[in-house]
Order: sequence, then structure tokens, then C-alpha cells
Amino acid sequence: MLELNTAVIQTQPEFGDIGGNVERALAMIPPGCDLAVLPELFATGYQFLSRDEALGLAEDPRSGGPVMSALGATAASTRTTLIAGIAERDGDRVFNSSVLVRPDRSWEIYRKVHLFWNEKEIFDPGDLGFPVFEACGTRIGMMVCFDWIFPEAARTLALAGAEVIAHPANLILPWCPAAMITRSQENRVFTITANRIGSEERDQPALKFIGMSQIVDPLGEIVVRLDSEREGAASAALRVREKDKLITPTNDLWKDRRPDQYDC
Amino acid sequence: MLELNTAVIQTQPEFGDIGGNVERALAMIPPGCDLAVLPELFATGYQFLSRDEALGLAEDPRSGGPVMSALGATAASTRTTLIAGIAERDGDRVFNSSVLVRPDRSWEIYRKVHLFWNEKEIFDPGDLGFPVFEACGTRIGMMVCFDWIFPEAARTLALAGAEVIAHPANLILPWCPAAMITRSQENRVFTITANRIGSEERDQPALKFIGMSQIVDPLGEIVVRLDSEREGAASAALRVREKDKLITPTNDLWKDRRPDQYDC
Repeated sequence: MLELNTAVIQTQPEFGDIGGNVERALAMIPPGCDLAVLPELFATGYQFLSRDEALGLAEDPRSGGPVMSALGATAASTRTTLIAGIAERDGDRVFNSSVLVRPDRSWEIYRKVHLFWNEKEIFDPGDLGFPVFEACGTRIGMMVCFDWIFPEAARTLALAGAEVIAHPANLILPWCPAAMITRSQENRVFTITANRIGSEERDQPALKFIGMSQIVDPLGEIVVRLDSEREGAASAALRVREKDKLITPTNDLWKDRRPDQYDC
Repeated sequence: MLELNTAVIQTQPEFGDIGGNVERALAMIPPGCDLAVLPELFATGYQFLSRDEALGLAEDPRSGGPVMSALGATAASTRTTLIAGIAERDGDRVFNSSVLVRPDRSWEIYRKVHLFWNEKEIFDPGDLGFPVFEACGTRIGMMVCFDWIFPEAARTLALAGAEVIAHPANLILPWCPAAMITRSQENRVFTITANRIGSEERDQPALKFIGMSQIVDPLGEIVVRLDSEREGAASAALRVREKDKLITPTNDLWKDRRPDQYDC
């Protein structure tokens, strides 16, 4: 069993102020943290008015940039694995991505598969599936915001061995915090949803983000949950048991699956 | 759009008193009901001490029996489609099944795929997949109790066109009523969970059933929910929109699925 010191960071970015947003967010990481999860698009803000605007504010992690540099420097100095949502540029494509940055500055990426509302006009849909990565002594998968409503996202990650699902988000619909409890239970994994607060007025209609960032354990217990109003970090020491899918003495959620009876 | 008068029936069966249990349960069906859902194993009770005891109390719907006769007679006289959990005998096999009985006395069956705890010593695992049936003007799928924790069950039914998922249950774990909200949301279907109350003392440990029978709409709103203490029926007129999977102007939950990115 692994004891993992985790934190979920809830922020209120100002659109386009990459330097300020990154500095404020990274300053909120508690000391002694093995893994910290930040919101979707934490550096840029959410409500791009056009694909060109997103391309202009995005960066390519393969060639570096201010956001990846700051994440790498902070991961190294604090010995924390960081997960954060970024606008990712790859040539003329732009993705709503989540990066995982280890203390040795090595990094991994997930590209949001299920785009929400007018994100479809801004971003390219993710094309890397739902990969799972070794980090801070365990196996971590990432999904971003609206991926929550598709059970296949968390299912794919958990079946591939993820013990922790990190979930940067910019939630506006009210249902996700409760649904992530089900995601944890059905897959027996920790889920860490890092959401933002505040609103953005750049377009009609203005969007109001719901906060309620949380960490949920494999039984569906809410370990910590923030409110809808304040920026902040919440910490939790998680006891990660590897491949523990036993829900009763005779029910192992993996062995009990019956794919021959499913058509989905 | 179809307006469907539905009811969920919450009972407290006495183990082995098939005649009394069936009579009390069917008397609770409200008048003017198109579809009523009763709990798992509503006629026999739950806690069989052996497979032989289950075989002895089960009946084969193909050759009739007191439970199927009563369901058929009540469906015909009340013009209600009935869904109820029964112990089903088929030769020397015995299933924890759910039957759908139409007012014309035609019937369909689902055999519980995911057996819970020591049900594995009593019943054979379901072998009919998750079929969807035409009834009372819409398409109905069935799942039984513990099937709730496997997202593939409701997913298979909804992808096959179910607009209503009927869910007879004998719940003892506390999580299902909330999880069924997620099942409704992620699949945009109505879910009707009919649970029992009370406890059975036949074996160690005694089981306490949680009630909280409910009907949830495709947005995840609880239309009706009963408590954990009392028998009773709750009615709801449901407005069933066919194949309505649109969650935002640009997000259709079916068209947005990306099976090429899943591995589950």
C-alpha cells in the first residue's frame, strides 16, 4: 500500500493573463505534496472567442514555453508531480490537453476526447485515447471536464491500471461532482477533480463555473470538497491499494465483468 | 412524445410466502398505470439458504405457475405492463430474473448478469445479455439490483434503444440510488428502481434492505423517491422523448461517443 499526499487546487484564472494565472496557481500547492491537480486551461482561461485566439495562447510542450517551464520548475523544486490543463499547440492543431509533469521534469500528455459545446469550434478532438502513466509510485490516468459523462473514459483508464484519475475541469453543469462519486465506485479508483470558480464574460452567454473541486476515494467517499466561491487548495493523504477491486468477499469488480453479455 | 403513467412499488416480502407476497404487491399498483415496476424476487423473498431451496420456490414462466399467472391476470385487468423480479426455473438451472408482462399477457425475460455475494452459490449467472423490448408504446430494458455498479449494463440497454430502464432491486449497499442518477444522465434515459425494505434473518448476517425506490428522469432529476421504512407506491407521469440525447446545442451524447478512443 502506498500513502500518497495529494492536493486539489481550485483557481479563478483571468483570461489571457498566463503569467499571473500560472504564478498564483503554483503558489497554492501545499508543501510536502506528492501529486497536485490543477484545473482545465488553468493558465489561459476558458472562453476563447476563436480558434486563432486559442492557437495564439497555446504552447507546444515539445518545444517548451512559459507554462511548461513553470510547471517543470515547480515540480522539480517542490518534488511534486503536477497535473494541469493547458491549451496545447501541435503545428496548426490545438488541443484542450492535460499534462502530467514529474519532479524530474519528464512529462506526459492527454488530449481531451469529448469536447463540450463551442469547444468544438476552437479545439481539435483528442487523438491519443486514454493513456495511463507511472508517476509518484502509482499509475495515473487523466480525463478533462466533460469526459466525466462518458463512462468509457474512466472505465478505459481504470481497466488500463489507473489507481488515480486526475480530472482537470472547468465545470458549468451541476452534475459532475456527484457523478464522479459513481466513477470512483464503479472503477474502485481515486478521482481528483480540480475545477475553477468565477465567471467569464467574454462571450454571450457568460459562463459561471461551479468549483466544488474534490477528491473521492475508491468507495465513493468524498475525502475533501471545496465550495463554489473561493480559490484554494485541499490536501488529502490517500492510501492507494494496488488492484483492489474486491467489493464483497465474492465480488471482484474486474472478475465480475461479463463482456460477453455486453454490447457497448 | 409519449406520456407514460408509471409507478414504482416498494414492498416487504415475507420469505417463502409467495401467495401473500404477490397479493399484497399487486394490490399496491395505482389505477391508470401504464407501467409498474416491482422489486427483485418480489414473490419469494431474497435470502435463499441453498440452491435447492431456490429451485423449489422458483417457477418456469414457459410452463406457467402462480406468480406468472397472477402477473398476467393483473396486467390484463389493469391494462398495466408489469415488471417484477422472480426466481426463474429452467430445467435444473435457476436464475434471478426480471419479467416484463404486457396487458395481453405476452411476456419477456431478463436474467441477472452480475450476481451479488452469495447469490453466486444460489443462482446461475444470466445468459441472455441485456435485451430491449417494445412495451406500452416505448422501448424498455431491464437490469436487476447489483447490475447498477457495472456501467456496461445500462449502457448496453440504452445503446440498444431503451428509453426506460426498469430496475428491480433488493439493495443493501447505500450507493445505488445516487448512482442511478448518473446512469440516467450518462444515457439520457428514465430509470425506475424498485427496491424492498425490511430485513431477513434467515442467515448470518441478517440483511437490511434500504428502500429508497425511485424514478429518475433523463436529466438526472429525481421524479419520485420513497423512504427506507415504508411499503408503498409512488406514481409519476413521464414524458418520454424518443432518442433525445442532446445535452447542449452541439453535444449529442450518442454522436459524441468516440469508441475509437476507448478500450473497455
